[in-house]
Amino acid sequence: MRIIGIDPGYAIVGVGVIEYKNSRFTTLDYGAITTQANTDFSYRLRVIYEDFTQIVNQYKPDAIAIEKLFFTTNQKTAIDVAQARGIILLVASQNNIPCYEYTPLQVKQSVVGYGKAVKNQVIEMTTKLLNLSKRPKPDDVADALAIAICHAHTAPSLMNYKNLNKYR
Amino acid sequence: MRIIGIDPGYAIVGVGVIEYKNSRFTTLDYGAITTQANTDFSYRLRVIYEDFTQIVNQYKPDAIAIEKLFFTTNQKTAIDVAQARGIILLVASQNNIPCYEYTPLQVKQSVVGYGKAVKNQVIEMTTKLLNLSKRPKPDDVADALAIAICHAHTAPSLMNYKNLNKYR
Repeated sequence: MRIIGIDPGYAIVGVGVIEYKNSRFTTLDYGAITTQANTDFSYRLRVIYEDFTQIVNQYKPDAIAIEKLFFTTNQKTAIDVAQARGIILLVASQNNIPCYEYTPLQVKQSVVGYGKAVKNQVIEMTTKLLNLSKRPKPDDVADALAIAICHAHTAPSLMNYKNLNKYR
Repeated sequence: MRIIGIDPGYAIVGVGVIEYKNSRFTTLDYGAITTQANTDFSYRLRVIYEDFTQIVNQYKPDAIAIEKLFFTTNQKTAIDVAQARGIILLVASQNNIPCYEYTPLQVKQSVVGYGKAVKNQVIEMTTKLLNLSKRPKPDDVADALAIAICHAHTAPSLMNYKNLNKYR
């Protein structure tokens, strides 16, 4: 199963592409889609749309796993992150790829095995599980890989009761 | 100047298309893009993308005017409305149409001349200014037309200091 994990944002979108087969991970690619702060916000969404469409066409994932949004103390930021997240969901639908969302708690439990794990523990375990030579940077990229791992761990149990054909 | 006003949403997107020339309004079209509640959210975003792209191609507006978002008491709804609003901004950018956002206060002041006007007053004045035989329904559609009027009233003053070529 090939999975793209996404840490949503409008300045930085973390992207991690992994393959999970016979309980083994292969890391295919990771990095960030970035947009320029001094450009029009709608243009920044367009950059995300174009870059993410290209990534999806290149890797043809079986699933996209994306972090669930919660309101933060900064309303403006949360609205803009949500607007950018909508673009990821759109690209998923346009390419007929199922999209799954996970809370930070689910990611921590799945990657570290402990819901109260701190960010550093999640990144360290992600680096280890994926056999990376060094910690992925920025953190958005490590978070995206962690979300992809979370889906890899969760999908087999989803498989037991729905969408059997999605996981091949 | 041809303007599309948008009242953003994910179940109902209000759309109003007007022409403003020599201080006179012509109403070209109005209605709503609607999406099915029982379908996948990312698919609903795709419907909005496809329908709005078609509307923009048909009417080739000079500007898109859209309501600014604020957080409501319902986080889930606000995040989903923001995700859908991102799709509208994306389509605007893909078609090189400038997008302007207005607060409900600005719309009330511009349409009724009074920032504390109630919703009914805004809809009545919108119906009158656009010479419509009856009140547009649902309210989302009337709101979209009101936002378009707000931009028509505001754009000439914007013209004095920027983007002169945008308004022809």
